[in-house]
Amino acid sequence: MIKYPAGIKPKTSKPITKKVSSLSIDSYKNRGMSLEHEINLTLDYYRDKQLALMQKRTTPINVVSVDYSKGAVITKAYFEKQSSTDYNGVYRGRYVDFEAKSTISKTSFPLANISSHQLQHLDQVLQQKGIGFFIFELQALDRIYLVEASKIIHFMRIEKRQSIPFIWLESHGHLIPLAVAPRLHFLPILDQLFF
Amino acid sequence: MIKYPAGIKPKTSKPITKKVSSLSIDSYKNRGMSLEHEINLTLDYYRDKQLALMQKRTTPINVVSVDYSKGAVITKAYFEKQSSTDYNGVYRGRYVDFEAKSTISKTSFPLANISSHQLQHLDQVLQQKGIGFFIFELQALDRIYLVEASKIIHFMRIEKRQSIPFIWLESHGHLIPLAVAPRLHFLPILDQLFF
Repeated sequence: MIKYPAGIKPKTSKPITKKVSSLSIDSYKNRGMSLEHEINLTLDYYRDKQLALMQKRTTPINVVSVDYSKGAVITKAYFEKQSSTDYNGVYRGRYVDFEAKSTISKTSFPLANISSHQLQHLDQVLQQKGIGFFIFELQALDRIYLVEASKIIHFMRIEKRQSIPFIWLESHGHLIPLAVAPRLHFLPILDQLFF
Repeated sequence: MIKYPAGIKPKTSKPITKKVSSLSIDSYKNRGMSLEHEINLTLDYYRDKQLALMQKRTTPINVVSVDYSKGAVITKAYFEKQSSTDYNGVYRGRYVDFEAKSTISKTSFPLANISSHQLQHLDQVLQQKGIGFFIFELQALDRIYLVEASKIIHFMRIEKRQSIPFIWLESHGHLIPLAVAPRLHFLPILDQLFF
């Protein structure tokens, strides 16, 4: 065993690369990345390979005061809630719009996490024949699902529940496989559902 | 003639509503609205009438410091240049992406106003079979044209010029008619060009 001088901790022994099957479900576990980061890496990959062009929307900021004496330095501002969804873009000519949500809940996804503005926006996207969906990360089950926005909107209108049971998401959603690149390969699911 | 007390100026004599033909070109003149404002009103109209869903992208802001003691007040930040385009959205299921530019120049549109990032972004949109275009306001001619992104990209690659002559924009572009609502009715041009 290697002895380290006091105050110097060894680096964690996790291997830098990890052999994962593209369909291995438990490989989601402990990958130590936020869902947002995983999605951003995926979208970078899709853009670089010219497979799709989707981007995260900029967080809107409400600017209160600007100091023009120093060349437009913002001196007071607030973060605002995104009134639409996190991501939009183009795939095979079609408009694509989606929201990504992660929960640590063990049995159901709390609907309070989805704002009425977001639902309304996705509803408008569907009216315009765009493609709308959610990506749900269920941390307790270590799985990530893609669910069509139409199904979530329908669920919320019909069921009048405060949360979506995981069992519902598993039967109505589509499991997104994890791989090295792209991290979350959801384009084949879009091919199957919308083309 | 009405005499006004000193210090009180009469309101401008412009009528509040103005009878304009939807194809009248000189009605652009003196309407006193920025191109951005005209486009935003148009997109609001399209959304309300469920004709299309397009939005202005939020100006990206680079946040330098945040005071969390007062509940996440941004205390220092800078405006960043938009690295893609001003607007995107969905029309008849297709992805739509465009940039709006206004010039006071009298004979040609200066290409320095279009960033290489914007061109690259529109090129990627076209690769994904999205709809990409520019809206050019020529203030001196009092006309607004829609031009396909493919034509502008081609012009810039082939012509190696610093500006696009108005005569080129007039022969390759599509005059957008002005009306009361919507202000700039460009959907029929998209119908004709892309569907």
